[in-house]
Amino acid sequence: MVQDVRTLQVQLEDRSYPIYIGRQLISGRWFREAGVPAGRKLLLVTDEHVGPHYLNLWTEALEEAGYRVFTHTVPAGEASKSLQTFEDIITFALECGLDRNSVIVALGGGVIGDLAGYVAAAYMRGIPYVQIPTTLLAHDSSVGGKVAINHPQAKNMIGAFHQPLMVIYDVDTLKTLPQREISNGMAEMVKHGLIGDVELVDLLEQSMEDLLQLSPDGFEDALEKAIAVKVAVVSQDERENGLRAILNYGHTLGHAIEALSHKQGEPIIHGEAVSIGMIGAAQLGVRYGCDSSIVERTRVLLQRAGLPTILPRRIDADSILRIMAHDKKFKDNQAVFILPKGIGEVYIQTGVPIQWVRETIDQLYGEV
Amino acid sequence: MVQDVRTLQVQLEDRSYPIYIGRQLISGRWFREAGVPAGRKLLLVTDEHVGPHYLNLWTEALEEAGYRVFTHTVPAGEASKSLQTFEDIITFALECGLDRNSVIVALGGGVIGDLAGYVAAAYMRGIPYVQIPTTLLAHDSSVGGKVAINHPQAKNMIGAFHQPLMVIYDVDTLKTLPQREISNGMAEMVKHGLIGDVELVDLLEQSMEDLLQLSPDGFEDALEKAIAVKVAVVSQDERENGLRAILNYGHTLGHAIEALSHKQGEPIIHGEAVSIGMIGAAQLGVRYGCDSSIVERTRVLLQRAGLPTILPRRIDADSILRIMAHDKKFKDNQAVFILPKGIGEVYIQTGVPIQWVRETIDQLYGEV
Repeated sequence: MVQDVRTLQVQLEDRSYPIYIGRQLISGRWFREAGVPAGRKLLLVTDEHVGPHYLNLWTEALEEAGYRVFTHTVPAGEASKSLQTFEDIITFALECGLDRNSVIVALGGGVIGDLAGYVAAAYMRGIPYVQIPTTLLAHDSSVGGKVAINHPQAKNMIGAFHQPLMVIYDVDTLKTLPQREISNGMAEMVKHGLIGDVELVDLLEQSMEDLLQLSPDGFEDALEKAIAVKVAVVSQDERENGLRAILNYGHTLGHAIEALSHKQGEPIIHGEAVSIGMIGAAQLGVRYGCDSSIVERTRVLLQRAGLPTILPRRIDADSILRIMAHDKKFKDNQAVFILPKGIGEVYIQTGVPIQWVRETIDQLYGEV
Repeated sequence: MVQDVRTLQVQLEDRSYPIYIGRQLISGRWFREAGVPAGRKLLLVTDEHVGPHYLNLWTEALEEAGYRVFTHTVPAGEASKSLQTFEDIITFALECGLDRNSVIVALGGGVIGDLAGYVAAAYMRGIPYVQIPTTLLAHDSSVGGKVAINHPQAKNMIGAFHQPLMVIYDVDTLKTLPQREISNGMAEMVKHGLIGDVELVDLLEQSMEDLLQLSPDGFEDALEKAIAVKVAVVSQDERENGLRAILNYGHTLGHAIEALSHKQGEPIIHGEAVSIGMIGAAQLGVRYGCDSSIVERTRVLLQRAGLPTILPRRIDADSILRIMAHDKKFKDNQAVFILPKGIGEVYIQTGVPIQWVRETIDQLYGEV
């Protein structure tokens, strides 16, 4: 039974869509409300981790609502964001006879959302798709329509802006996540607070430990606020021409840290790397005039979220700077950073000297 | 030197763009006018037929205007619209360091426009591209933003709606085309007249033979009118949700005829198949009340354009109907056709009985 559902609305003219947040949301009702008539073909794409938990439940609910459901399961992990898997799903969609009225359903975390979303963007020049995120991290990636697969030489190089028909965020699906994955997603929730919602930061500070347990009291409140920040930004800058850059708070250093750690075979996962990156951004922000209390307040919050705030020495500064240079983060030895003005407000700072970036990285190793 | 350029404007809010029609248009000027600053990277994609004629001229003109030009040449023909070629071009673009400000330039016919356009749609989630069509047929495909590559099982299955930054139509590039290719494109010009511009039909009837010679007197007039019909339709229905279907006049039968002839290894090329298809559409239209003179008037015009108007018996009716069924053209033994009301006006007719379609095909074999 569906109960106590919160709805957020992404406003993008004819590409507007709702985000449902709640528990026990597995139901065909949302599809009917979105105007998908019974009889339509739906292709559920999931991975080998998520499928065993939720694929049958969703399939049954959707078939009960009168849809013709097909399913395709890919291996879990980033390697599935390949052109080969992309082509395989399109082949399967053709074999199932999906047409321009059919709907792709992305059931899983960020990899599945990106992959299935890009299939939907490309199939017959674009068909509708639905995001059903099953990780906390995907509260971020499932909203905003950025979909992509990887090129062997670069992540997310082949993609589109393709807004979903809706996002169905069933908090119950988070219960099967390991704690590290909850913390992983919590990093982006903290980010959303820091860039746009003081009240969310307050809420996180009041009850982080409860939130990590998905406590019914406050969890949906916090999640709704975090998604609302993303929604507000995306609604103003769908195609990342300006404002949307602030969503990269903590990501400029974070991406480099994440990439390096993967190369070393000892992954610092996305939220963890962004956590360290947000400490760096806070420190840099202080150089530009932000009150220095922001560093400590950010650090305490992230630590309570179970996230690292110190950079391991194996991730050396030279390598970070090299990756940033390779990713064209520097121009004339200066970089662009998203920096805090205070809690809940950030801005885009151009012309950050490479030397300051290096000094910031050095600070991230912590006290010797 | 640039002279006597006509400009049409596709009106699609922030995706609006100009179409330049004229002679001796090879120049960096259009890129500057489109707001592409000197220093930007441009990737020219062409094929082995077009490249030897125009690639160096364009490269020199663009380098002279201060752009950093890279070039990539693919084999001529439909086989280049593959995922493999798509990936190859993206790999090359990465190696050249193209970023979100770089521009892809499609220099060639419909295959190159579709392929390079889809690379531009997908690369980094979409970068600008410019259409420089070099065939008469591409006066149609280069306008409107439909780009795609083929799946082994189905044409144009992987694609996007991605509007170009501009279309540069240099009539001089048509001079190297064989006559069959001129006729191929003329079929779509006749179609544009029949669906939307009586004056264009008059013009074609007055001087078809001169137009096939690209005569400076009237050719640009006719071309401009033909493109203007496409522009008007696309401006009203960018993503083919309704009106844009009328551009398929003659294509319902035409596509099936084209596909079958290719399977038989004796291709009836696109414009030729559409030509036969337009005779069929006219005949069907008469059944629905259109004045019967339209059949003869269409036939004479197409014959003067050097196009076939009789269906070879090797393309049998059963196979055509089978292909139409496979392409989901029938629902409850009825089809949707674009039919003429009169010269210059068409409408969407649903519920066309399969028996009428069969009888129309039988008529197309001509007198026994």
